[in-house]
Amino acid sequence: MSSPDTRFKFVEQTLRKYRDITLKALLEIIPSREPKKYLYNLMPVYPKRLGKGLRTALCLATCKAFGGTINSALNSAIAIELFHNGFLIHDDIQDESLFRRKAPTLYAEQGVGIAINVGNAMNLFSLRLLMENRAHLGPNLTWQIFTETEEMLRQTLEGQALELGWIKDNVCELSELDYLRLSLKKTSWYTCIYPCRVGALIATGGAISPEHFYHFGWYLGSAFQIQDDLLNLLGEYEKYGKEINGDIQEGKRTLMLIHLLNHCSAGEKAKLKRFLSLPRRDRFLEDVEWVHRLMIKYGSIEYARSCARKFAGAALHEFEIAYGDLPDSENKQFILEMILYMIERDH
Amino acid sequence: MSSPDTRFKFVEQTLRKYRDITLKALLEIIPSREPKKYLYNLMPVYPKRLGKGLRTALCLATCKAFGGTINSALNSAIAIELFHNGFLIHDDIQDESLFRRKAPTLYAEQGVGIAINVGNAMNLFSLRLLMENRAHLGPNLTWQIFTETEEMLRQTLEGQALELGWIKDNVCELSELDYLRLSLKKTSWYTCIYPCRVGALIATGGAISPEHFYHFGWYLGSAFQIQDDLLNLLGEYEKYGKEINGDIQEGKRTLMLIHLLNHCSAGEKAKLKRFLSLPRRDRFLEDVEWVHRLMIKYGSIEYARSCARKFAGAALHEFEIAYGDLPDSENKQFILEMILYMIERDH
Repeated sequence: MSSPDTRFKFVEQTLRKYRDITLKALLEIIPSREPKKYLYNLMPVYPKRLGKGLRTALCLATCKAFGGTINSALNSAIAIELFHNGFLIHDDIQDESLFRRKAPTLYAEQGVGIAINVGNAMNLFSLRLLMENRAHLGPNLTWQIFTETEEMLRQTLEGQALELGWIKDNVCELSELDYLRLSLKKTSWYTCIYPCRVGALIATGGAISPEHFYHFGWYLGSAFQIQDDLLNLLGEYEKYGKEINGDIQEGKRTLMLIHLLNHCSAGEKAKLKRFLSLPRRDRFLEDVEWVHRLMIKYGSIEYARSCARKFAGAALHEFEIAYGDLPDSENKQFILEMILYMIERDH
Repeated sequence: MSSPDTRFKFVEQTLRKYRDITLKALLEIIPSREPKKYLYNLMPVYPKRLGKGLRTALCLATCKAFGGTINSALNSAIAIELFHNGFLIHDDIQDESLFRRKAPTLYAEQGVGIAINVGNAMNLFSLRLLMENRAHLGPNLTWQIFTETEEMLRQTLEGQALELGWIKDNVCELSELDYLRLSLKKTSWYTCIYPCRVGALIATGGAISPEHFYHFGWYLGSAFQIQDDLLNLLGEYEKYGKEINGDIQEGKRTLMLIHLLNHCSAGEKAKLKRFLSLPRRDRFLEDVEWVHRLMIKYGSIEYARSCARKFAGAALHEFEIAYGDLPDSENKQFILEMILYMIERDH
């Protein structure tokens, strides 16, 4: 098996290309006026740490594959990137995470109050960019994208509420279906469904049915989320950029944890539930490692890996429905290769 | 001098009327679907605790005074109420406040993570309501209100950034002008300028100049904010509903604190700066009371009271410019009487 570096050279080059275009444009729209120190200088902090840029790439590549131009979708791509980074800022506070993209989280550096406000500003600037679409996309298409945005934000907030609620109330009776519903809302919608829909809407002048990309995006996003959770257990900090085992520490209901809860012995489940009922700071490293070992023992990690492959396969099938009719192009090829990349990436 | 209860009977009756109309409509738009426990059941928590409803009343009364109807502005009034309550939820986390409207703050009850998410949902539902305006106000007016909303949110976030930044960096060299700039952004814009502008835009089909209500709203909002800060020092918890002296505890740069920093002795200033440099939890009650006594000794409280009166006077003058040409009406009279109410209210 060749290393991911050579197999995914084209994917990673394309991701970098779109990420760089978006980042450059994003940095240009951050105001240079006051308050700098407490607001505008902080908005580019996460974007400058260079994420993978999956979401903007999906939007821009879909727009191109459907016959549109980068320029027509650039505002929306920046908005997607700002929404994403704004979610991350709030997410890190909500999860009490310490590291993001190999550096301290924004709230750890600036305090919770300022970080909440910066996250809010990221969302506001996204809306503003989507409003500015009006000048070149016209009022109707702009409005369609607004409607998509409202739906995406609502799905994401509902998913976030579920995830936080399950941790807060120590909900342990969960099935794979519960996990899939969660990942649809909290991940797939804003990571895949929304970027693809926005890109295609812009390219076609709004001629995309409401269902288009729903299944493709759901499966692709779920494969992505499972791989992300696997990297949290198995990755290297230097590549992954977050605390390894951080998900266990925070009690996050990953597919691995749900599988483990459903397959370990009654005694282990009772101990696991006690561990999960503790406040995060009282969950000791040795117990975190015990949970990790249990996940290996009961095949929870292997199970999640096989699910990620299954979802990638389903996404591949849906790719044919969502993109199959389009003429072959580099961008279509990129999206196709992204499916495998989602579950094979090491960061 | 008659008690506020009889002097402001008409104002308080009108406030209650508009608050009740808005609250009823607000509760109807909260979804009854899942996730209830972690999201939709929590959105009405602050609104149900019954604030004064100043902002919605300003919007609805201005709309009526300019010849519009309640129905045409109701969606926007609910949006204003949701924005306001969403700000409060985030604000309480940012200020580490324990009580809001005579009950524990939402984050104290539900945890920071869920509270951030509920605040975000309040903002999203506001946007959604403003989008729904399109059906009865048409695309152009809807867009104008969106533009106003974007400006209001930006001003509010910039004001919030300044206020949090000053506390974080223990900024002590501030003037009355700094305070006025802050109150314009963090309070006046969303409390007065925006509600009045939205009400008048709806009533006139968009025929309001960009400057209309700017000075009226700025002065009225500043008078309101100073009175709010005075009540934090002098009010009764039973009426005010927040921790008395909470502002000193959190190091908030009120007009009283800025006046005190500029008028106390060098020794007292050094001690005060040390007190303000401590983390909130290390600021002891006896020191908080010492700051309060210093504010009395140096006339900071009397000074702030005179400023509030000055701003109310300026708002009265601007009222003539903003509303003077309109025919007399109950709603015009209500807004006029609101000016004095802002600085005489005890809650």
